[in-house]
Amino acid sequence: MSRDKIRIAVIGASGYTGADLVRLALRHPAMEIVALTANTHAGKRMEQVYPHLAGQDLPALVKNDEVDWSGVDAAFCGLPHGTSQEVISTLPEHVKVIDISADFRLRDPETYAQWYGRAHTALELQKQAVYGLSEHYREKIRDARLVACPGCYPTATLLLLLPLVRAGLIETDDLIIDAKSGVSGAGRGLKLNTLFCEAGEGLGPYAVGAHRHAPEIEQELAVAAGHEVRVNFTPHLAPMSRGEFITAHARLAKGASAADCEAALRARYDDEEPFVRMAPEGILPATQQVRGSNFCVLGVREDRIPGRVILMSTIDNLVKGSSGQAVQNFNIMFDLDETTALLQAPMFP
Amino acid sequence: MSRDKIRIAVIGASGYTGADLVRLALRHPAMEIVALTANTHAGKRMEQVYPHLAGQDLPALVKNDEVDWSGVDAAFCGLPHGTSQEVISTLPEHVKVIDISADFRLRDPETYAQWYGRAHTALELQKQAVYGLSEHYREKIRDARLVACPGCYPTATLLLLLPLVRAGLIETDDLIIDAKSGVSGAGRGLKLNTLFCEAGEGLGPYAVGAHRHAPEIEQELAVAAGHEVRVNFTPHLAPMSRGEFITAHARLAKGASAADCEAALRARYDDEEPFVRMAPEGILPATQQVRGSNFCVLGVREDRIPGRVILMSTIDNLVKGSSGQAVQNFNIMFDLDETTALLQAPMFP
Amino acid sequence: MSRDKIRIAVIGASGYTGADLVRLALRHPAMEIVALTANTHAGKRMEQVYPHLAGQDLPALVKNDEVDWSGVDAAFCGLPHGTSQEVISTLPEHVKVIDISADFRLRDPETYAQWYGRAHTALELQKQAVYGLSEHYREKIRDARLVACPGCYPTATLLLLLPLVRAGLIETDDLIIDAKSGVSGAGRGLKLNTLFCEAGEGLGPYAVGAHRHAPEIEQELAVAAGHEVRVNFTPHLAPMSRGEFITAHARLAKGASAADCEAALRARYDDEEPFVRMAPEGILPATQQVRGSNFCVLGVREDRIPGRVILMSTIDNLVKGSSGQAVQNFNIMFDLDETTALLQAPMFP
Amino acid sequence: MSRDKIRIAVIGASGYTGADLVRLALRHPAMEIVALTANTHAGKRMEQVYPHLAGQDLPALVKNDEVDWSGVDAAFCGLPHGTSQEVISTLPEHVKVIDISADFRLRDPETYAQWYGRAHTALELQKQAVYGLSEHYREKIRDARLVACPGCYPTATLLLLLPLVRAGLIETDDLIIDAKSGVSGAGRGLKLNTLFCEAGEGLGPYAVGAHRHAPEIEQELAVAAGHEVRVNFTPHLAPMSRGEFITAHARLAKGASAADCEAALRARYDDEEPFVRMAPEGILPATQQVRGSNFCVLGVREDRIPGRVILMSTIDNLVKGSSGQAVQNFNIMFDLDETTALLQAPMFP
Repeated sequence: MSRDKIRIAVIGASGYTGADLVRLALRHPAMEIVALTANTHAGKRMEQVYPHLAGQDLPALVKNDEVDWSGVDAAFCGLPHGTSQEVISTLPEHVKVIDISADFRLRDPETYAQWYGRAHTALELQKQAVYGLSEHYREKIRDARLVACPGCYPTATLLLLLPLVRAGLIETDDLIIDAKSGVSGAGRGLKLNTLFCEAGEGLGPYAVGAHRHAPEIEQELAVAAGHEVRVNFTPHLAPMSRGEFITAHARLAKGASAADCEAALRARYDDEEPFVRMAPEGILPATQQVRGSNFCVLGVREDRIPGRVILMSTIDNLVKGSSGQAVQNFNIMFDLDETTALLQAPMFP
Repeated sequence: MSRDKIRIAVIGASGYTGADLVRLALRHPAMEIVALTANTHAGKRMEQVYPHLAGQDLPALVKNDEVDWSGVDAAFCGLPHGTSQEVISTLPEHVKVIDISADFRLRDPETYAQWYGRAHTALELQKQAVYGLSEHYREKIRDARLVACPGCYPTATLLLLLPLVRAGLIETDDLIIDAKSGVSGAGRGLKLNTLFCEAGEGLGPYAVGAHRHAPEIEQELAVAAGHEVRVNFTPHLAPMSRGEFITAHARLAKGASAADCEAALRARYDDEEPFVRMAPEGILPATQQVRGSNFCVLGVREDRIPGRVILMSTIDNLVKGSSGQAVQNFNIMFDLDETTALLQAPMFP
Repeated sequence: MSRDKIRIAVIGASGYTGADLVRLALRHPAMEIVALTANTHAGKRMEQVYPHLAGQDLPALVKNDEVDWSGVDAAFCGLPHGTSQEVISTLPEHVKVIDISADFRLRDPETYAQWYGRAHTALELQKQAVYGLSEHYREKIRDARLVACPGCYPTATLLLLLPLVRAGLIETDDLIIDAKSGVSGAGRGLKLNTLFCEAGEGLGPYAVGAHRHAPEIEQELAVAAGHEVRVNFTPHLAPMSRGEFITAHARLAKGASAADCEAALRARYDDEEPFVRMAPEGILPATQQVRGSNFCVLGVREDRIPGRVILMSTIDNLVKGSSGQAVQNFNIMFDLDETTALLQAPMFP
Repeated sequence: MSRDKIRIAVIGASGYTGADLVRLALRHPAMEIVALTANTHAGKRMEQVYPHLAGQDLPALVKNDEVDWSGVDAAFCGLPHGTSQEVISTLPEHVKVIDISADFRLRDPETYAQWYGRAHTALELQKQAVYGLSEHYREKIRDARLVACPGCYPTATLLLLLPLVRAGLIETDDLIIDAKSGVSGAGRGLKLNTLFCEAGEGLGPYAVGAHRHAPEIEQELAVAAGHEVRVNFTPHLAPMSRGEFITAHARLAKGASAADCEAALRARYDDEEPFVRMAPEGILPATQQVRGSNFCVLGVREDRIPGRVILMSTIDNLVKGSSGQAVQNFNIMFDLDETTALLQAPMFP
C-alpha cells in the first residue's frame, strides 16, 4: 500500500457507475483503490462481476461493514438512494465522501420525502452536503466533506441553462427540457424495460412529469433565478448504452437573442472550463461527441418561432453524468489538478 | 396478368419506401405489381437489390420510360423530390398516382421554391393534388387522381395535433414539436451520417429550424387554426432503423386541460379510425408499439408547468409514415376496404 | 364465436414466442383465438403485457386451469420445459397440441433427463409426439395429435444439413455448427446477460459444448445418417433482437463437391418448398433476408481447404424458429394450405 | 514544439483507424502530433471531420506532400492499400514508419499481387518490413524502420493459435476460423452494406473464402508450423461498431487435450504479456470485455466431438487490431515502456 496515494473505497461497486468509477480510478495517478464493496456480491473478485476489469490489480468485493475505514481517505458511494444515506452516516469523519447516489442532492427534506417516498434519515449530513456540479460549485466542493454529485440529467441541463438563467437571457416560467438517454442510466438491475429486446430498435418517453431529476433541476435553477422555477422535464429512453442529450426549448427574455445565449455560454466556459465547450462551428452536438469522456458539448440555435431559442447539451451519463464528475470533484477536494485522469478523448466510433 | 386486380407500378422501387411498398403490395389481394422502376438499377431483378424480396414473383426493374402505362391503373411514386414532379407529369391521365415524395405536399409554390431550392415545374398538377393524410382528407382522396402522401413527421404530428387545434384546446403560437426518428427516414442513399458507425450508439438533432417537414406541418395546422402558424420543429436521429416519435409540448387554451385533450382525441379516433388509437391506460406510447405496422399510437400527459400539456405520437416512419399510408390512400381511391393489407399487427420484439 | 373457425388457445402467451404466435394468429383466416393463458399475468389484458397488441380483439389472460377446453380445438404451448409436459398432460384428448417448448423434442427419455436435469413425467405422450420440422416430417405431422416444434437452432441447422447427410455428401464425424442468434431467443425472463447494456454493442459465445439444442440436432442427423452423430455446436449471442445464422463447416464425402451440395439442396427445396430457398445468385444469406418472416435462406460456398465446404442457413428465430413453424404445423394438422398466414415478406430494414 | 517528445505524423488521419490513433496519441506522454494528413479533407480542422476530437490541440489536416518531414520522427500510416506503399516510399529515411495498412504484411510479392489485384511497387521496402504482431515479433520490431501492423483478424487469430501450432498441440490441415466483426472494420467509406439500416439488427457472412486476411493468417501459421498451411476463414458482420471475435475449431494433435491448449496459452502469456490473457475462470470471452482497450482475451473449451477443441479470442478491432497495436509497436521501436498510453481499461457498458 503506497502512502503517497489517496486511498479510496468504492461503496456499491457492482453497479454501472461503480464499475465506471473503477475504470477511471485505475488510471488516476493519485488514487489507490483499497476497498470495493457490494453486499450481494461480497466474496467475489471484481472480474467475476465485471469481466472487462479482469487483469487489473483490484481488491475483492466485500460487504460495507467489512471495510477497515482507518485506511481509507475517501469513499465514492454508488448505492441506491435510501441505502446511501444509511451507509454514509456510519462512515468515520476523516473519510471524505463523494456520493453518486441521489440521497443528498435535494436541500429541502420535504421535497426529498415527497419525491423519494420516505423521510430523509440523515438530515444533519444533508445540511453539510455540497451540490457537486463541479463547474458551478467548485469553491464549496473544495472544502466539503460530503459532495452530492448531481444526477446525469441535471448535470447536462444545468451546465446548459445556469449561465443563461443567471444572465436573465431566458424566461423560466415555461422551460421545456426534452431529454433523451441511453439505457445505462437505468442501472444494472433486472427490469423488463431495459432488456435488449424491449429497449432495442425503439424509443419512447418514461416518467413523464414524474422523474426525480425534475425537482433537482428546479432547485438549482431557482437559485440562479432568484425565485421558484417549475420545468417541463420529459425524458426518453433511446436504444444505446451510453449518452444523454438535452434539447431545451426556451422563450428568450425581451430583447435577448440566440446569439446572446451563445455568447453567454462562451463567456462562461470558453477558456474557463476544460470539460465544457460549444460544438464546433456548423456542427450540432450529439452524444457521439462525448461517449466515454468527461466532456459536455453545448449548442444554440434560433427557433423558427420568433422570440424563442433551442438549447442543446450532451454528456456521457456514466462519466460527466456520474463517475467522471465524481472524480472531478475528488480532484477538487484533494487539491489535485481538476482534470487528472479525465482528459481521455471520447471514443468514436 | 389477372384483369380482376388493379395493376400497379412502383416508380422508384429501389428506395426503402419503394421496397416497403412492395412488401405491402405483395399481400394485397386487389393489387397486381406489373412494373417496378429504378433507373440506376434497371435490368436487375428486385432480389439483387433487395435480397429479402427473393422468392416473390416480381417483375424485373426497368427504367421509367420503359413502362407500358396502358397496362397500369395506379402508380406509387417514391422518387426524390424534383424528379418526382417531372416523371408524374408524363404519366397518362388514366393512371392514378399516389406520390410518396415531397413534391406535391406544399400548396403554395413560393413556399415550395423556398424550401426545396427550385421552382415547382408542374403547377397545374400541384393544384389537383390532394394532401393524403388519410384520416383527415378521406373524402377528397376518394375522388383524387393525384394524392400527395404526407411526410413521416407531418403524419405523426398532424394526427396528434389537428383535432386539438380544431377544437381550440391548445394555443398555436408556441408549439414545440420535438421529434425523434429512426435512420431509415434518411433513405438508402450513401451518406456519412447514416453509416452504422456514425448513427449507432448515439443520438443527436439535425436540420434544427431547417427541416422541410416544418412548412408542411405549418400548412396543415394553419388550415385547422384558421390562421398562419409557426412551429418549433426539432428532429433527432436515434439509433434504430424504423420508428418515429413526436413529443409535442403545448400551452393549453384558457380553461382547457390535459383531460380535455385526451377526450378530444378519443372522440375523433376511438370507434372512428382503425389505425389511430390512444396508448393503453397507464402506458406511454413508444415506437416499439407500432414497428412494421400502419398504426399510430397517441398519448397525453399533464405537464408539471400549470397550463401546459405534453402530447405524444408514434408511427413506423416507413409504414404509416410512408408506404402504409400510401396503400391506405390507394384503398380509398379505389373504393376498397380502407384497411386492406394493412391490419398486420406490429412486430415486437 | 364463429363455428367456422378453428378455436385456438395459446398457453404461455406472455413469452416472446407466445406474443409472436398471437401476431400471426390474428391474420390467420381460419383461426379464432379463444384463450390466452399466462399464470403470472392472469387477469390482465394482453395489451398491458404487450402494448403492441393493443387495439386487437383479444381475450384477457387467464390461468391455465381457467380455460374451458371444451371450446378449444387446438392449443399452442409456449411454456418453459418441465411445466409444458405437466400442462399438456392435462389437456383433453380432442385438443390438438402444437408444443413450442422443448419438452417433447427428444425421443430418448434418458437423453432428456441428462440434458434437462429431470426425468420426463409424460413418457406416454412423448411416444406419440411427432417432431415438427415441417418440411421433413410433414406426413407424420398431418396425423399427429401432439407436435413438438423443433428448437430454433435445430430448425435452421436441420433444414440445411438433412438433405446433405441423407445424400451422403458430407461426413458426419466432425461437423462444426457455429451459430449466431439474436437476443429474443433467450426469452422475456429477466436475466443479466440479456439486458440492453450487457448484450448491446458486443458479441460472445455461450453454452459452448453444453447447449440443449445439440442433442436435438444430433438426434435428427442420426436418423438421416443411419448412425449416431456427435456435433460441435457453438452458439453466440449477437446484438440484435431477432435472427439466427448457422455457419456449418463440413468435410465433403469423397468425390463430393460444394456444387453437389448446392444441387442437392436445390433438388430438395426448389419447386418443392414454399419457405426454404437458396440465397440469390452471388449473394450470401443474412438474417436481414428473413426478419419477421417464416422463410429459411440457405447458401453453399467452397472452403479454401480442399475437400471441405461452408454451409449457411438463416431464419427468424421467433418465426420459422418458433411461432411461424408452429402455425405451419397447425396448417398441416388441420389440412389447410400450409402457407396460410405465413407468406408475409420479410421486413427490411 | 517540445523537443523532448517524439514528433509523429498520422498519414490518412480521416479514417477510423487514424482517428483512433489520434485518440490514443493524445494521452501518450512521449508523443507530439505534428502533422495530420488527409488528402480529401486537407485544409479542414480535425474537429470538422471528427467532432469528438474538438477541444484538443491538434494540427489542421494537410495533404501528404505538405508535411515538413524534417520535423517528424515517426509516421503512422492509415492509408488504403496501394496508396500506402506509394506514400511510404517517399518518406525520408529518418522517419520510422508504423504502417496500419495492408501493404507490407505479405512477404511474398506473388501472394500480394494475387490477393490485392496489383503488383507491389515497393519491393525493397517490403523486404525490410517487419510483421508487427507485437507479442511475437518484439525483437525484430525493436530494430525495424518499417513495421507492418497485422490486420485485425490476423491479430486476434494469431495471438490465439501461434502458441498452439508452435507447440504442436493442434493440427493445421483443417483449421476452421469462424470470425465475427463489428462494422468499423469496414472503414468510414460510403458503402451500402455498412449503412445503419443495412448492417443493423442483422448478421451475415461476407467475403467467404475470399478475405485478404486469410493469406496473412496462413503466412504466419506456416512459419510456426514449419510448412504451408491453408485455413478456413469465414468472417461475419455483426451489428456493433467495435469488437472482433474469433471462434477457431481445431483438431487436437494426437494425445493433446483442451487442457494442454489452455496450459500452453497460459505459459506463453500469463506473467509474460500485459495485453493478452485468458478469460476469468468460468467465463467465456466476449467483445464486451475488451471494447476500447488494447487487450486480447482468450478462451479454450472442449468440443463435444472427441479429439477436437474450441478456441476463442477477442479484441477491439480498432485498438489491439489496429491503432493500439500500432502504438504498442511505436513504444517498442522507441524503447519506451511497451504499455505506455495503452493500459486504459475497457469501456463497459
